[in-house]
Amino acid sequence: MLYLQVIFYTMYTTKELQEKVSKLFENRNYLTEPNELYEPIQYSLSQGGKRLRPLLSYMACSLFGGDLNEVSNSAVGLEIFHNFTLLHDDIMDKSPLRRGMASVYHKWDTNTAILSGDTMFVIAYEYVTKTNPGILIDTLKTFNQTAREVCEGQQYDMNFEKNNDISIDNYMEMIRLKTAVLIAAALKIGAIAAKAAKADIDKIYDFGILIGLAFQLRDDYLDAFGDSKIFGKPIGNDIVTNKKTYLYLMAYQLTENTHKLDEAFAIDEVKEKVDTVLKIYNDLDIKNITQRKIVELYDKALLIFNSINRPQKDKEQMYSFLHQLVKREV
Amino acid sequence: MLYLQVIFYTMYTTKELQEKVSKLFENRNYLTEPNELYEPIQYSLSQGGKRLRPLLSYMACSLFGGDLNEVSNSAVGLEIFHNFTLLHDDIMDKSPLRRGMASVYHKWDTNTAILSGDTMFVIAYEYVTKTNPGILIDTLKTFNQTAREVCEGQQYDMNFEKNNDISIDNYMEMIRLKTAVLIAAALKIGAIAAKAAKADIDKIYDFGILIGLAFQLRDDYLDAFGDSKIFGKPIGNDIVTNKKTYLYLMAYQLTENTHKLDEAFAIDEVKEKVDTVLKIYNDLDIKNITQRKIVELYDKALLIFNSINRPQKDKEQMYSFLHQLVKREV
Repeated sequence: MLYLQVIFYTMYTTKELQEKVSKLFENRNYLTEPNELYEPIQYSLSQGGKRLRPLLSYMACSLFGGDLNEVSNSAVGLEIFHNFTLLHDDIMDKSPLRRGMASVYHKWDTNTAILSGDTMFVIAYEYVTKTNPGILIDTLKTFNQTAREVCEGQQYDMNFEKNNDISIDNYMEMIRLKTAVLIAAALKIGAIAAKAAKADIDKIYDFGILIGLAFQLRDDYLDAFGDSKIFGKPIGNDIVTNKKTYLYLMAYQLTENTHKLDEAFAIDEVKEKVDTVLKIYNDLDIKNITQRKIVELYDKALLIFNSINRPQKDKEQMYSFLHQLVKREV
Repeated sequence: MLYLQVIFYTMYTTKELQEKVSKLFENRNYLTEPNELYEPIQYSLSQGGKRLRPLLSYMACSLFGGDLNEVSNSAVGLEIFHNFTLLHDDIMDKSPLRRGMASVYHKWDTNTAILSGDTMFVIAYEYVTKTNPGILIDTLKTFNQTAREVCEGQQYDMNFEKNNDISIDNYMEMIRLKTAVLIAAALKIGAIAAKAAKADIDKIYDFGILIGLAFQLRDDYLDAFGDSKIFGKPIGNDIVTNKKTYLYLMAYQLTENTHKLDEAFAIDEVKEKVDTVLKIYNDLDIKNITQRKIVELYDKALLIFNSINRPQKDKEQMYSFLHQLVKREV
């Protein structure tokens, strides 16, 4: 008996891809000796999180008709790399909480978070190294460049805390490095795995940068104007900590009375401080200005996305997922 | 006019290789924006040091008749990786000095040493990634495994500080991970670059492990029995800090009066402490025992080295260099 095998590529739904990504991380056991080193790694990687970066790699690979197996190792590597940066960032930012649980540095100590983080970085490279040799170098180069830029972004973020002369452009460059490049790299690595055309690989990367910027501005926006019940975090945390967000910098740029802003940010009592700053933000129309900037970035992203050489029907899923991500309330 | 080109491989002298390694690091400029991130990297990588690991890569590549250009990028990567581990180790061990200068964590601060260290780790991988594709995967796998084991070694070293039940075997395994694997990897990567036979690559690695162990025991030995003028560091620093070295552990294993050792290590006054501990070490014949162990490791290493399939005359240089390294007074 003869079977005729027809090979055609399947577009998975976002939900199917999300399930495949979850499976990638299910039941992974990083525990080995010395336990003091690997227990915090197991703890960090078992906390879940959105697994956004591997999902984006899968979506891009699927969009370009690739085999998901070709990108699964680098996708895991990207997620582990992302979690490594969180371990070290939490030390530097003195953040006791991560995803509602004690951060590694807080639960154990600084030395543990340093060394377990370093080891996670190695594990990330171990996964990337398993990539098919034909696409290994392009994948590694993307990974290296991204890792370096994420470090640079964290440095700028720390510099900004001590510097009162930050422009909106400085800020956009910082969030490009700290947040957007990893989102863009996740998409690019998926496209590389699918052997997409060079021009399309570049386009999905540029698209990812714009989506990443919009994603971060949406985060800034929700901190001030979100619904705490939906957002899942208390509103106004950035205001309480005097964080130099897009909103903060825009307010200082637009106000005619910086003294009044200084005074508001100097208030001790938390609720009074948040209310006073929000009142100034509203007077300066910061809410609409930020929304317009997000829409502007999103529209630019869409223009690039539309020019990617794939059938419109195959693009709709990623379009709808990213729309939801950028317009998200949570 | 016709030139007849004869290609034959040249064995470089150790001195020539040392000069070539120096050139690899001359005038390298890592400075770029953000300056706060790259200045400590430039500082760390300009301090010099022995550049032992790249030299070993060059020696192994040369021994197997390879082209040094094939290993130069990974050799630089290994040295930068080594320096990255020093940055992070100095935070964890609270060491204010490195090569007679302020350590990065001490000159700047912990956050700087964490993030500049992370960036050096990325830069190390950038160099390794430049390796010829034909040998990239083997090189990367060696690099990854080594990096992970060095982290494990540092963890064991930290564990030992809090643990009073360390056997000599535990100690040998710790220094294998913390010190020996990187020396062995440097040799292995050189052999891979020269496309040596699999059996010889394994042999030079095993040889490197034994040499690395002997090298570390020699370090322990010199701290107690060296000549401070030649050694370049004050004698007895390990004793003053109650460091669990081979000598310390052997003394506790051999003594019939641990109480007397506890008392000696509890002495406050530095000179009195060093003298008292050294007196016990001498009574227990620790000097000769340690020397015999070094010779035993060295002889085992030599046995492996002799079985490597290269002409005896080509081996003599590495043999003489490593003999000097292990028998070194400095």
